[in-house]
Amino acid sequence: MSTTSESSGTPFSAETYFATQLPPPNLDQDVSRVREFVKRQVKEGRRVVLVTSGGTTVPLELNVVRFLDNFSAGTRGATSAEYFLKAGYAVIFMHRQFSLQPFSRHYSHSTHPFLDFLDVNPADTDGHQISVTPVEQAQLLNVLTTYKKVHQTGVLHTLTFVTVNDYLWLLRAVSKELSVLGRNALFYLAAAVSDFFLPRQKMSEHKIQSGKGSLHIEMDQVPKILKPLVNEWTREGFIVSFKLETDPELLIPKSRTALSRYGHQVVIGNDLHRRKFEVVFVSPANSTKPLDDAQPSNFVETWIRIDPAQDPAKEIEEDIVTELGQRHDAWIHALGQ
Amino acid sequence: MSTTSESSGTPFSAETYFATQLPPPNLDQDVSRVREFVKRQVKEGRRVVLVTSGGTTVPLELNVVRFLDNFSAGTRGATSAEYFLKAGYAVIFMHRQFSLQPFSRHYSHSTHPFLDFLDVNPADTDGHQISVTPVEQAQLLNVLTTYKKVHQTGVLHTLTFVTVNDYLWLLRAVSKELSVLGRNALFYLAAAVSDFFLPRQKMSEHKIQSGKGSLHIEMDQVPKILKPLVNEWTREGFIVSFKLETDPELLIPKSRTALSRYGHQVVIGNDLHRRKFEVVFVSPANSTKPLDDAQPSNFVETWIRIDPAQDPAKEIEEDIVTELGQRHDAWIHALGQ
Repeated sequence: MSTTSESSGTPFSAETYFATQLPPPNLDQDVSRVREFVKRQVKEGRRVVLVTSGGTTVPLELNVVRFLDNFSAGTRGATSAEYFLKAGYAVIFMHRQFSLQPFSRHYSHSTHPFLDFLDVNPADTDGHQISVTPVEQAQLLNVLTTYKKVHQTGVLHTLTFVTVNDYLWLLRAVSKELSVLGRNALFYLAAAVSDFFLPRQKMSEHKIQSGKGSLHIEMDQVPKILKPLVNEWTREGFIVSFKLETDPELLIPKSRTALSRYGHQVVIGNDLHRRKFEVVFVSPANSTKPLDDAQPSNFVETWIRIDPAQDPAKEIEEDIVTELGQRHDAWIHALGQ
Repeated sequence: MSTTSESSGTPFSAETYFATQLPPPNLDQDVSRVREFVKRQVKEGRRVVLVTSGGTTVPLELNVVRFLDNFSAGTRGATSAEYFLKAGYAVIFMHRQFSLQPFSRHYSHSTHPFLDFLDVNPADTDGHQISVTPVEQAQLLNVLTTYKKVHQTGVLHTLTFVTVNDYLWLLRAVSKELSVLGRNALFYLAAAVSDFFLPRQKMSEHKIQSGKGSLHIEMDQVPKILKPLVNEWTREGFIVSFKLETDPELLIPKSRTALSRYGHQVVIGNDLHRRKFEVVFVSPANSTKPLDDAQPSNFVETWIRIDPAQDPAKEIEEDIVTELGQRHDAWIHALGQ
């Protein structure tokens, strides 16, 4: 087998990572916009959820032609963001450039292209020549009305990343900004983040030439970012991470390991092939109370399932968000106990 | 440096590749649709161009979570396809799933989302509540009218690929179908195809576990597919390949090497950072005549440049397609000489 994991030297700590890798050029600008957004939500009394979505890239060259990527269209994040908005949350939607976004996700250029449902007519009295095909009008009117309302009330803020480096710097900065919300902040970390990266210091400047041989890539491990997120950057936020596996046997053990290691509130486990209709919430048995530093040894598993045969239009993210809203509520109210 | 090329064993020939790697599941269906399309174009007397567009992936696992990718939004291919249609060609648009497509490319969800230019109004006498913002009407009407005409006349056929394996199997099959067109077929190979792949036999079944160490990947070289394309699959088509480099010094030497090695008609060289306003056509000095087996030793370079400061709406693909239309014309008429 050509792809193997081997131990090699010391993995990067988060501290070493940020001391040696460069921030993305727009970081300061992005952060100040997030600060404004959060300030407004605090003033208006809204809870805020950070939704991360889509895959991260690992460029192999400084002038990027090739990169490693993680499979993710961004469906989970984009869909969940809509239900969080519906539930009254303000949403920071931090997504991979060109991955699906809330609202426009209903009109993917590949599967439901909007040009297919616009008609050209003779000009009417207002000079309009383009109309929406009757069969599409109701859904589009619904999506469009919600979209416009969300933008008018200013409850959705979008940020984009491409590389795993962009993602790590943004996550650190945004989570620090969210710490002013205390327990009213929810982290919904649905992005498919690379476990590996190529330190800037080891990258080739130009496109790797194919020459006559095979390609060898050796990558370092990405620091475990949940650790400082939970312990330093945002000590009070309710933190939900995701675990995607293709081997169903690994789903629950790996989710438990993550909770033990990082001490956060929920891991949502999903199997690559069943993720559209089945997920499992894994949490420490005492998840509504503040965790002490002791590692949890008892866990609760809650399965959420939908039946697409019964209701093809139902999206599992609706039930995920409802369940999380209740748990977040309990987390907020457990503070004084 | 962690990414290196080294010689190792014998690279895969095209023959070995197709004998050991599996075809994509929809191949037969895709090919029979292409056959119908080509048959109709022959009957209606149109030239046909195969446009390939977007990057290919190299999955690292059989149940894919991680993959290597080549940078490409598909702008060159999608834009060129529109100009080929305008020039009277029938177009087979073979593109990476979710990469840009002709016509819808003008309305990217990230940069020009269509939801932003639809207005909700009180219902008119026909019950219409949605209209197009006045400032967007002219362009949309133009795009939409052309889009509908293209679909009505049946001159655009779209195929999708994801992996480099999909791409190779599709390219072989489609080029064989195009051989019935003789010199009336044009190949415009703008896709960013990986030079490396992981043979199925070496792939990990499940998601690679990150464990405690670094990731090592060793990939094999993709066979040089232009060789059998030119020599076996489609001996008469006019073949244009692309060379993308980040080091300007390599552009012309590498384009010449490709022409010498494969014996096709044009390499369009483009630098990653200048590709929107400058490309170079490299061709053998005798490119309108049938090539004998001798390697060309004299080359002609033709630069095509546009000035975005003069005309921001101008797209370089318009000039690329005009130049290629003339060369293809000469290629067709040189047959009897």
